[in-house]
Amino acid sequence: MTMDYEVLFNQVKKASKSLVGLTDERIDAVLERTADRLEAACADIMAANRRDLEKLSPDDPRYDRLLLDEARISAIAEDTRNVAALDAPSGKVLARRSLRNGLVLEKITVPFGVIGVIYEARPNVTCDVFALCLKSRNACVLKGGSDAEHSNSAIIKIIREVLQEQGINPSAATLLPSSREAASELLRAVEQVDLIIPRGSARLIRYVRENAKVPVIETGAGICHIYFDEFGDEKIAPRIIDNAKTRRVSVCNALDCLLVHAKRIGDLPILCGLLADKNVTIHADDRAYAALEGHYPVRLLKHSTRESYGTEFLSYQMAVRTVDSLDEALEHIDRYSSKHSEAIISDNRENAERFVQEVDAACVYVNAPTSFTDGAQFGLGAEIGISTQKLHARGPMALAELNTYKWVIRGHGQIRE
Amino acid sequence: MTMDYEVLFNQVKKASKSLVGLTDERIDAVLERTADRLEAACADIMAANRRDLEKLSPDDPRYDRLLLDEARISAIAEDTRNVAALDAPSGKVLARRSLRNGLVLEKITVPFGVIGVIYEARPNVTCDVFALCLKSRNACVLKGGSDAEHSNSAIIKIIREVLQEQGINPSAATLLPSSREAASELLRAVEQVDLIIPRGSARLIRYVRENAKVPVIETGAGICHIYFDEFGDEKIAPRIIDNAKTRRVSVCNALDCLLVHAKRIGDLPILCGLLADKNVTIHADDRAYAALEGHYPVRLLKHSTRESYGTEFLSYQMAVRTVDSLDEALEHIDRYSSKHSEAIISDNRENAERFVQEVDAACVYVNAPTSFTDGAQFGLGAEIGISTQKLHARGPMALAELNTYKWVIRGHGQIRE
Repeated sequence: MTMDYEVLFNQVKKASKSLVGLTDERIDAVLERTADRLEAACADIMAANRRDLEKLSPDDPRYDRLLLDEARISAIAEDTRNVAALDAPSGKVLARRSLRNGLVLEKITVPFGVIGVIYEARPNVTCDVFALCLKSRNACVLKGGSDAEHSNSAIIKIIREVLQEQGINPSAATLLPSSREAASELLRAVEQVDLIIPRGSARLIRYVRENAKVPVIETGAGICHIYFDEFGDEKIAPRIIDNAKTRRVSVCNALDCLLVHAKRIGDLPILCGLLADKNVTIHADDRAYAALEGHYPVRLLKHSTRESYGTEFLSYQMAVRTVDSLDEALEHIDRYSSKHSEAIISDNRENAERFVQEVDAACVYVNAPTSFTDGAQFGLGAEIGISTQKLHARGPMALAELNTYKWVIRGHGQIRE
Repeated sequence: MTMDYEVLFNQVKKASKSLVGLTDERIDAVLERTADRLEAACADIMAANRRDLEKLSPDDPRYDRLLLDEARISAIAEDTRNVAALDAPSGKVLARRSLRNGLVLEKITVPFGVIGVIYEARPNVTCDVFALCLKSRNACVLKGGSDAEHSNSAIIKIIREVLQEQGINPSAATLLPSSREAASELLRAVEQVDLIIPRGSARLIRYVRENAKVPVIETGAGICHIYFDEFGDEKIAPRIIDNAKTRRVSVCNALDCLLVHAKRIGDLPILCGLLADKNVTIHADDRAYAALEGHYPVRLLKHSTRESYGTEFLSYQMAVRTVDSLDEALEHIDRYSSKHSEAIISDNRENAERFVQEVDAACVYVNAPTSFTDGAQFGLGAEIGISTQKLHARGPMALAELNTYKWVIRGHGQIRE
């Protein structure tokens, strides 16, 4: 039996309209109740999760991302409660203006309507996205990875039961089949879906960009650089580099490439001083290799290749390249950056300001690590992703970015001359 | 000889970077000088324009849109001076936040970089877009209609001479050949072009949406409704309807369809009272036809067909449909609206508020005509288009909407725990 996606998406669109008029109290009650029910249904969710896990080997890196235990389910519930506690973004007056003729204009935040999210094998995303969408008065259409099929179904079942029980149209949280066809239909649902956010690998994001007819916000892929300038402080650099690279290697703000000014190449062993203990493999160009040789474990030292640059490692690996000037560093970043997070270490104000002004990225750091790029760190509350594009939202995206606005104009018969 | 678009677009990208550091004074000097030079070169521009006009019959509706005379060239120059006088949008601090560890975060407005604009046979757009892009520190790639080829070349030649003379990379204003191939290359220039804005017919916008890989802001297509509610005031309605329909029929905010509550169908001759003098043809459904018959000139009265709804007339024509409830009006608008501008005439507060909340459009009016949808009316200064999408900008788009933002984070060696 083939699925009628148009009918399905129209149901979600209809549900989205019913969310607009709900009070904050009702929304928050749904989120609180969902959290309670997820914890109460822990055993059922874990049973569903085991059916997904059975398909993978425990050595597969996806196994850990997919695994749900009691602690992780409690963490999902707690995140849902945290979203309930945040300020709702809709209905805020961004601007107000009275014309001389008495017409009153207001620019007011409103939900997008229907938000589609395409993601991979992380079942926590299912509840996370639902909570952020509901709090911002959007319905969501979720397309998860096939690895997490049973886990996602178990979670969405609970969410929909809560919606139903609270008198809200359960289509406001709709999980699609985990097929390629479902993704393709979602990407083309121009009349029904208002925005699509892909969360996952660079490959997934590229697929979405190539195939979407619905507007998209690209997120996540982070090819991040730190440039150690001619005037960099070698005392603060090792901890910055270590924190950016090793705080969590699997996240998008993790460091991928260190650029070092040629005049400071002698400091490279100091700069990389904290990385050897953590078994970070360094892919170094010839000058950097020579500088590190004898100071860095040889088993962790490789000669860089063309593939070393412009690679998001997501592992204990890092490229190092020597540059002869700030200009060369800026050119390298312009060529290889994914416009996520970029940093300079320098005590020279002029160089730092040039870097800030010329680097085209969502987040540009001076003397601090890229690991700070995060919605919570930035004070935005929970985060739905980190946008690497420039339209609408850039960097960490939270509840406010899940709203658009509308102009409301009230008069009493005025006409335009 | 085939054109190497990648090389060309990279030149524009390079030019865009050189704009970031320019002072407001230099930008404004370029705009003032461009205005002066356009007026001084009036004869040359008119000669180029005649070469374009020769290809059209004076009866062709495109002829008037294409025509440049002394008054129109002065108007273009004046518009350019007006843009110079506006506030520049870049470099504004939208938010500032200090973390407990001393890290300082700033959210700062920055230009997109390179903006592509695809438009049809209106040569004034060439200078207009250049001025708005330069003022907002963006380089522009222009793809005009082939009808306006010589006119556009004459204008861009002057702009580039001024840029050169003022020491600014002239690639910051680049006119593409008016070929389909050029449009197609522009739409796929993901690495070089940051944003594309199509300006023109619904057909052009659809083509852009279907083919773009670069992010797009859809503009312009306006299928606009006025709903005369059961509780509408028949004293204010005729002027609102007349103003919305006939103030300028060729613009996107013009009225296309009047919805009338069945209980007020008897008022229809009054509602349409000012339209007959202006020769507005009405496409009426059966009930509306019956109500108008004998009160409205029979030569201007037609029975509506399926095509009457969801049509952007851009002419002295209008559809009228009878609805039995506010719900039916909302359903009609949901189905046929292009999400541009929608209005209700009602003295019932509850109905008006439901309309405001439930209609999904950039601009929603109560007791006022859709003709007010305009950047200048909204107090935004000059306008590059009216967005009908929800991402980034909605409704009139001006200088502020031609900027994105960047997070700048300054520290002295802090790390994330």
